[in-house]
Amino acid sequence: MSPIERLTRELGRLPGVGAKTALRLAYHLVKGPKENVRRLARALIEVADRIHPCPVCGNYCATAVCSVCEDPRRDQSVICVVEEAFEVGAIERAARFRGLFHVLGGRLSPLDGIGPDDLNIGGLIGRIEDPGASVGEVILATNASVEGEATAVYLEGVLRGYPLRVTRLARGIPVGSDLEYIDGTTIAEALAGRREMEAR
Amino acid sequence: MSPIERLTRELGRLPGVGAKTALRLAYHLVKGPKENVRRLARALIEVADRIHPCPVCGNYCATAVCSVCEDPRRDQSVICVVEEAFEVGAIERAARFRGLFHVLGGRLSPLDGIGPDDLNIGGLIGRIEDPGASVGEVILATNASVEGEATAVYLEGVLRGYPLRVTRLARGIPVGSDLEYIDGTTIAEALAGRREMEAR
Repeated sequence: MSPIERLTRELGRLPGVGAKTALRLAYHLVKGPKENVRRLARALIEVADRIHPCPVCGNYCATAVCSVCEDPRRDQSVICVVEEAFEVGAIERAARFRGLFHVLGGRLSPLDGIGPDDLNIGGLIGRIEDPGASVGEVILATNASVEGEATAVYLEGVLRGYPLRVTRLARGIPVGSDLEYIDGTTIAEALAGRREMEAR
Repeated sequence: MSPIERLTRELGRLPGVGAKTALRLAYHLVKGPKENVRRLARALIEVADRIHPCPVCGNYCATAVCSVCEDPRRDQSVICVVEEAFEVGAIERAARFRGLFHVLGGRLSPLDGIGPDDLNIGGLIGRIEDPGASVGEVILATNASVEGEATAVYLEGVLRGYPLRVTRLARGIPVGSDLEYIDGTTIAEALAGRREMEAR
């Protein structure tokens, strides 16, 4: 197997990259400056060498504890629970949430054989029960999919015994959307969750 | 910039990979086995270290001369000219052509500022004029696009002074296609290039 074939095979393992795309990417890399290829290789090696899950929240980080968990200015009383680490970034980009995160590492999905024991739920309980902590609210920010919803319902049951607010992200019309393109279930949720107009 | 951000940036340089896809790929790599990440990095480094253009035909190879050029069983009298190195693979997979290749490294495209001097045309002339060679036919296998066609017409002019057959890949209906989906220009070309049915 030639180096180009080997690179094509490795690129073809990436999600959403089929055989033809892998070949196109490989030849793009071969044709371009070698420095670009080496820089991508270095970035990969750095990730393999340095990135690990934060022992507290499960988000990926290159330091002993992730930057959110070790930031004393973050509100230690609120934990936002997400399915996957990259969703932390989506919430951080919104720049609205100042609490902590907890990454489950997936969602309940019986069809895929993923049950509660496969998710980082024990870590969440440990954080809530930690005598040094004072968690007052857990926001369930799992996805608005069937599995995400089932995961939220399951977690709500697990957390019911604790003196906590357990909340869920609001359902509604995404900002910038036209109503005519929104499905009926979302409109029903948006109606159920309607709020008073604030005085201007 | 964190290692994940750096990897996302490098992946985002690949063609067809936008910011969101780059992020998704980066997290896929972070979440999977580290060995997969290292294997991709090794494949990249191997390509950067070992792959270079064949000094004869311009195809990429890891050896002094590419495997087609150094194969004495290939028909040395026919050179198939392609725009890009990856098109050599497309023709090789058809397993019909037994001659040699020549990679131009692009196509004439005045709008992109690519003229004859930017293509490996001098190398082709050198191969034809080489007293030790005996090239009898040059197949212009540039793409069936406007630029590919213009490149073929230009090359035909350059090669006119040499005692050579200069041929072009046939235009026609792709195998397996329904006529109703074929554009009129292709049908016109297929009619113009129609051939006698062979006796069975």
